[in-house]
Amino acid sequence: MKLNIAVLPGDGIGPEITQQSVKVLKAVADRFEHEFHFEEAAVGATAIDFWGNPLPDATLELCRKSDAVLFGAIGDPKYDNDPSAKVRPEQGLLKLRKELGLFANIRPVKAYEKLVDRSPLKAENISGADMVIYRELTGGIYFGEKSTSEDGKTASDLCTYSVEEIERVAHLAFKAAQSRNKKLTLVDKANVLETSRLWRKTVKEIGKAYEDVQLDFLFVDNAAMQMILNPKQFDVILTENMFGDIISDEASVIGGSIGLLESASVGEKSALFEPIHGSYPQATGKGIANPVASILSAAMLLDHFGLEKEAAVVRKSVEVSIQFNVCTPDINKDNHYTTEKVGDFLESVI
Amino acid sequence: MKLNIAVLPGDGIGPEITQQSVKVLKAVADRFEHEFHFEEAAVGATAIDFWGNPLPDATLELCRKSDAVLFGAIGDPKYDNDPSAKVRPEQGLLKLRKELGLFANIRPVKAYEKLVDRSPLKAENISGADMVIYRELTGGIYFGEKSTSEDGKTASDLCTYSVEEIERVAHLAFKAAQSRNKKLTLVDKANVLETSRLWRKTVKEIGKAYEDVQLDFLFVDNAAMQMILNPKQFDVILTENMFGDIISDEASVIGGSIGLLESASVGEKSALFEPIHGSYPQATGKGIANPVASILSAAMLLDHFGLEKEAAVVRKSVEVSIQFNVCTPDINKDNHYTTEKVGDFLESVI
Ligand SMILES: CC(C)[C@H](C(=O)O)[C@@H](O)C(=O)O
Ligand SMILES: CC(C)[C@H](C(=O)O)[C@@H](O)C(=O)O
Repeated sequence: MKLNIAVLPGDGIGPEITQQSVKVLKAVADRFEHEFHFEEAAVGATAIDFWGNPLPDATLELCRKSDAVLFGAIGDPKYDNDPSAKVRPEQGLLKLRKELGLFANIRPVKAYEKLVDRSPLKAENISGADMVIYRELTGGIYFGEKSTSEDGKTASDLCTYSVEEIERVAHLAFKAAQSRNKKLTLVDKANVLETSRLWRKTVKEIGKAYEDVQLDFLFVDNAAMQMILNPKQFDVILTENMFGDIISDEASVIGGSIGLLESASVGEKSALFEPIHGSYPQATGKGIANPVASILSAAMLLDHFGLEKEAAVVRKSVEVSIQFNVCTPDINKDNHYTTEKVGDFLESVI
Repeated sequence: MKLNIAVLPGDGIGPEITQQSVKVLKAVADRFEHEFHFEEAAVGATAIDFWGNPLPDATLELCRKSDAVLFGAIGDPKYDNDPSAKVRPEQGLLKLRKELGLFANIRPVKAYEKLVDRSPLKAENISGADMVIYRELTGGIYFGEKSTSEDGKTASDLCTYSVEEIERVAHLAFKAAQSRNKKLTLVDKANVLETSRLWRKTVKEIGKAYEDVQLDFLFVDNAAMQMILNPKQFDVILTENMFGDIISDEASVIGGSIGLLESASVGEKSALFEPIHGSYPQATGKGIANPVASILSAAMLLDHFGLEKEAAVVRKSVEVSIQFNVCTPDINKDNHYTTEKVGDFLESVI
C-alpha cells in the first residue's frame, strides 16, 4: 500500500516522540513492503515563532492532500499564562480538527496486566478494564462563539450542538460497541444542559437501530466518579467535546501512564493520529518522554487503512517492550531507557 | 443562640438522611442550650408531584426568612430520561441557589485514616489528602441562556462570567487558603475558553493581595488526572460551576464513599448545607443511605454561625462512628447499620 503521511511534530516533546513513530512506521513499510511517504510541517507554538500562525496554510494544505496526519503535541506555557495573547498554539490544533472535519476522537483505554501495579488505583479495581471513548471533536463549547465585552469585564463561550453533529459520531460509537461488548454509555449533563438533552434524545433515537447494543446514560459528574470506582463497567463511552476532554484524561490513570494512551481523530475524508498527552514542556529534550502513545497512535493509523496485521505487529512490539521493561521513566523508574532507545527497541522488534 | 433552619428533604433518600441531621442538631441544641427551630418545605420532584413546581413560592419564602437551609437531595429518574420534560426537579435546586445568591459552594474532601483501605485508590496515594474545593455556584453554563431551535434540530447553552462573579468566590477561596496550607489552584480551560481566560486574569490580579498564598493553574483535563495521581498536592481548589461539579464528584473517591461528603453553599445573606451525593433513588426507603454527608453538612452549618465547639462535637461523633464501624453498607459491608441506627448512634454521642 502507498500512503502519504503528513508529520506534524509540534511543540515540546512532540518532535522527539513523533520521530520514534516515523521510525517504527518505516520499519513496518520495509517488512510488509508498503510505500509510506512522510512529509513534515510546522504547527503550534513552533509555527507561531516562525510564521506568526499556529496553523500555516502550507501545513493545512499538506494535511489535506495527505492520506493521514501523524500529530505530535502542542502547547507552550508562555501562552497559557498570558490570558491576553491573541494567537495561541492550541488554535492550530483546533483549526486543524475543524478544517479537516475530524468529528470523532477515539481514545482506547485499557489496563496493561504487567502495569496494573503502577496505577494509583488498586490492581483489583482496574485489572481487565478495557474501554474506548468516543469524544465529539469539532463542536460544542470549543467552537461556539466566544466573546469578551469591550470593557473586559465579562466573557462568554457558547456551546451548541446539532442533531447531525451528534448523529455522525454516535453511529461510529454504536458500531464500535457492536464489535466489542455491546454496551454504550452516553455521558452528558441532561439535568442541566439543553445541548445534553439534545444528545440524550438523539442518541436514544439512533439506539433503536442498534438493538443489540445496551444503551446507558450517566451524568458527567457521576461518570467522573464511576470511572475510578468501577472502570470495568464501561465498554464504549460516547460524549461531547468538553466532557470527553476531561473524562479521557482522567481515564488515563487506568493505563498506569498517560504516556501510553493513543488516539485517532477521524472525519469523512481525513484522519489524524495523536497521543492524548500534551507537549510536556518540562521534559523537552531530556529523552524521558514516552514514545509509546505516539507509536500506538501510529498503530491506529495502520488499522485505519485496513493494515490490521501491521498494526498488530506494532502493538505486539509495545507489549514486548513493557514485558522486558524497556520503558521510559514514567513506567520504569529505576533503570529506564531514553525516548530514542525505546524507539530503537520497538523498531528492532518489528 | 437562636436559629431558624429551613429543612428541605427533597427526593429519594433526601428525607431519610435529613431526618438524621435534624435529630443530631436537636441533640446539639439540647446539650449546648441553643434554640434551633426547624420548619420543613417541599422541593424537587416531590414538589412537582404536589404543586407542579420544583420550588414552590412558599419554600423559597421560608428559605429567605430562615437563617439557614438544610437541604436533602433532589432528582428522579423519570425526568432524566424524558428530554422533553418542561419541569425538572433540578430546576428547583438551581433556582434556589440563584434566588438566595449562593455563589460559593464549599466542598471539603479528605481521606479518613480508618477508611483509606476502602478507597479504589491505593492507601499510600490518598493517606493524608486534605483539600477543599471552592466551586462557583450561580454562574457559568448552568445559568446562561439556553435554547433549542424551533425545529428541534439544534440546541445551545451559553457560558458567561463577569469579573465580579469571579472575584467574590475567589476572595473566599484565597482566605480559606490563608487559614490552611496557603496554596490555591485555579482549575480552568484557559487554552480554549474565553471565560477561563477571564478567570485566570482575574484570579491572578486578586492573588496579588494574598501574597502568602501560592497560586497555581491547572487545565481541567489535567486536573481530573492529577486528582487521582496525586491528590495530596491540593490544598484549596477554585473553579467555575461545571468544572467544580465534575471535579468534586470525582474527588469523592478519595474519601472512600460519596456518602461522607458534605458541602456548604454560601452567599451574602443566605447559606445552604447539603450532602454532595444525589437522591440515590435505588436506595430510597431501604435504610441503606449514609446519613453522614448530611450530618457533616449540618456541622458546616454550625461552623457558619460560629458554633465551632458544637461543630467539632458533631465531627467527633462521626469519627467515633467510623472508628467503631457503626456505618451504613457503603462503608461497612458485612455487618452494617441502617440509616436510622447510624443517626441514633451519632445523636447519642453528642
Ligand atoms: C490542547 C487542547 C486544546 C486539547 C483539547 O482540549 O482538546 C487537548 O487537551 C486534547 O485533549 O487534545
Ligand atoms: C443536581 C444537579 C443539578 C447538581 C449540580 O450539577 O450542581 C448536583 O450534581 C450538585 O453537584 O449539586
